[in-house]
Amino acid sequence: METSNLETKILVAGAGLCGSLLGLRLAQRGYHVDILEKRPDMRTKTVDGGRSINLALSDRGLKGLELVGLGDKVRELCIPMHGRLIHDKEGNTFLSKYSGREGEYINSISREELNKLLLNEADQYDKVQIDFDDAVTAVDLKNASLTYHDSESDTEKTWQADVVFGTDGAGSVVRKTMEKQRDFLFSHSINWLPHGYKELSIPPTEDGGWRIHKNALHIWPRGGFMLIALPNLDGSFTLTLFLQYSGEGYSFDSIKTDKEILDFFKSEFPDVVPHIPDLVQQFHDNPAPPLGTVRCEPWSAYDKSLILGDAAHAIVPFYGQGMNASFEDVAVLDALIDAHDSWEKVMNQFSKLRKPDADAIADLALDNFVEMRDSVAHPDFQKKRQIEMRLESAFAKAKYQSKYSMVTFPAERVSYKDALVKGRAQDKAILWLLKENQIQVDDDLHELLDKINQKTQEVMWLREK
Amino acid sequence: METSNLETKILVAGAGLCGSLLGLRLAQRGYHVDILEKRPDMRTKTVDGGRSINLALSDRGLKGLELVGLGDKVRELCIPMHGRLIHDKEGNTFLSKYSGREGEYINSISREELNKLLLNEADQYDKVQIDFDDAVTAVDLKNASLTYHDSESDTEKTWQADVVFGTDGAGSVVRKTMEKQRDFLFSHSINWLPHGYKELSIPPTEDGGWRIHKNALHIWPRGGFMLIALPNLDGSFTLTLFLQYSGEGYSFDSIKTDKEILDFFKSEFPDVVPHIPDLVQQFHDNPAPPLGTVRCEPWSAYDKSLILGDAAHAIVPFYGQGMNASFEDVAVLDALIDAHDSWEKVMNQFSKLRKPDADAIADLALDNFVEMRDSVAHPDFQKKRQIEMRLESAFAKAKYQSKYSMVTFPAERVSYKDALVKGRAQDKAILWLLKENQIQVDDDLHELLDKINQKTQEVMWLREK
Repeated sequence: METSNLETKILVAGAGLCGSLLGLRLAQRGYHVDILEKRPDMRTKTVDGGRSINLALSDRGLKGLELVGLGDKVRELCIPMHGRLIHDKEGNTFLSKYSGREGEYINSISREELNKLLLNEADQYDKVQIDFDDAVTAVDLKNASLTYHDSESDTEKTWQADVVFGTDGAGSVVRKTMEKQRDFLFSHSINWLPHGYKELSIPPTEDGGWRIHKNALHIWPRGGFMLIALPNLDGSFTLTLFLQYSGEGYSFDSIKTDKEILDFFKSEFPDVVPHIPDLVQQFHDNPAPPLGTVRCEPWSAYDKSLILGDAAHAIVPFYGQGMNASFEDVAVLDALIDAHDSWEKVMNQFSKLRKPDADAIADLALDNFVEMRDSVAHPDFQKKRQIEMRLESAFAKAKYQSKYSMVTFPAERVSYKDALVKGRAQDKAILWLLKENQIQVDDDLHELLDKINQKTQEVMWLREK
Repeated sequence: METSNLETKILVAGAGLCGSLLGLRLAQRGYHVDILEKRPDMRTKTVDGGRSINLALSDRGLKGLELVGLGDKVRELCIPMHGRLIHDKEGNTFLSKYSGREGEYINSISREELNKLLLNEADQYDKVQIDFDDAVTAVDLKNASLTYHDSESDTEKTWQADVVFGTDGAGSVVRKTMEKQRDFLFSHSINWLPHGYKELSIPPTEDGGWRIHKNALHIWPRGGFMLIALPNLDGSFTLTLFLQYSGEGYSFDSIKTDKEILDFFKSEFPDVVPHIPDLVQQFHDNPAPPLGTVRCEPWSAYDKSLILGDAAHAIVPFYGQGMNASFEDVAVLDALIDAHDSWEKVMNQFSKLRKPDADAIADLALDNFVEMRDSVAHPDFQKKRQIEMRLESAFAKAKYQSKYSMVTFPAERVSYKDALVKGRAQDKAILWLLKENQIQVDDDLHELLDKINQKTQEVMWLREK
């Protein structure tokens, strides 16, 4: 099937963030797009998510949104967060900035509001049809057709297309169909953390303001566990507690009674307690779902079906890159449609090109859990960040970018994979130089840059397979 | 259930190498052991394997066999291989020894003969029962029972035990049952290589001798693919070709006709061709199965069921450690039964203790594919091996062991994980020092040792997460 043929019928499984952006973009290109979504339409009914309430949007995600012309509308939904505001057990705080450069920050955004915006935009295209309440029950990868439960007629129906995209999230039915086939070798994994997460909420002040610092991502790092908070437009904050299910020390298993809950918060997060009057009730009411990483390969089947977003590479949330990676997927796919004349080539290239980056951001996200809950509180880590701020303020991106900055505010063509390889080496190089007293925070900037770059090159070589 | 209770009924799924050694050891300890095996009894019927014909047995595996008193009997089945005999495209060969120490070598052994020996030994215990032709169809992990197809009565039967061990190999039904349950988080993965393998055979000479050097593991390294050969007691060699299924250059897809097969061998392995009169026929007749790595966690369920061996950690064959790791599993489990009074503790400890080592040998085996098919032919790699031979000849194990030696001929308490972490760092350290001209092959030995150890410590720090 040629990509230039605008009669191509495209079927998208899933109208979440990735599916609705993809559907919108494909419609803008002129294709017929049908989207099947198992949940109700969130614009008319309350959808009980089981998914995080707000998300961090940064440059890679914004690029995908700008591709469909939504940059400005999306920015209206954003609250800038300039750094990590770290809370110790005495309630003292300090800000660790995300970048030493002006205008580089991440944004807190409501998952639901962003998704609604994307659905509304997609609905404006005649060639787009979105069917809600229709869960996909079977996938014919070879023939690009989906069987689903049609909620209106309460029957099973089959929808035949030319091309199928699976953007049906971490539990993807399209991916599970790939797992079951025996025509080609399909590598796949699911890895669970021992930690679950529980969302809680700090309400707005009476006049709709924010009870703690608005423009930051708050972290209460406690070694084996942590609490974080992201601001919402209505003045509230969504808190997320990341805690092991069981084991020595605090765990969800060991914090059950009202007293245990309150004692835990009073001991570990005392400055949070006054802000949440119904803390104990929220803790009881809200679930503690698990955190998993999904990897697989290849992402395409029979040159007709392709998975992307969480369906292909669900990751843990600690780098705030899950949505950003999915939106970057759409931008990468869009560029491949420009570059190739057949869907076969687009799909094969996408899987090959994008897989190393998906693996890299999955690993980076796992790394960052340790960094957020533990390393941020350590002196050498803080010195490293001070040096990086100085370097980023003084030099252009081509000369110096921290790992965080390469991931979050990438210069042109810095992929997740590049960020992982260079970023990890650079972190190790700086920490080594600090440990060996070969650099100090206040050293001459050019000298710092030279020493760090030289050691980074060596470490990259030494860390290579 | 207490481990001291000899009335404990143990059910083992699978009478392959791991299951039969485990069953034998548990019987020696005095437990009731029933083993269910889906294949026929290989001692009375020819079993069509689909599995490799011969294997490399080394120290970790031998230790497991010595535990059951079979060291001497097993050695009679072994052909020592002192190193890699590397064949270039002109037919020139050179030997790269496995160790610089006397008496350190690996052994080629027939999978079938070793399995028969273990079955015969197990059969001598009244408390052991082995049922062949009985495929497990369902597993009740919670109640330690297996449902199987009973070949004699041609009906489904259920066998109730106190403890279940799953040693049913890479395609383990016990593991797949763990994958499906929803009571606990079970991480799992299967990763396929793009390469398959095809076994071929060099026949003995007319008087039953070996046509190529008997006491070595032969390698024809060709970059992206390779051929290897291991000797058999009857004078034959089992060759294995590792080749990608498709893609640029040679692949199973591109080598189909008689002419393509012969041209491929004449061009790449010319010295092999005269030894295999029916080469083309063998190539047509023999399958090319895939190579996968299986990982999962935890290995135990409900404190009643445990998987071990390939069922828990199937690996690619390039380190010759699959069987060795499985036999070491049995030895580790045996020591835990000594150390703990309940099966619950034994199972939990086994999974926690052994999982990092299983992950390590899986990674090492993947590394070694690149080393065998490519690195062995490179000058700096060869210099590294020369230096390592010198160090191993001159110093005790406590002072120096190569990565290969730590994996294959470990000093006391060197785990696969230790071997991976230190071994990889050491390899990188030596290659770095060579590249930077900081060491030469003929340097003073003490100076070499100091420089390498010092750089290795640094590299370990720099490679750490």
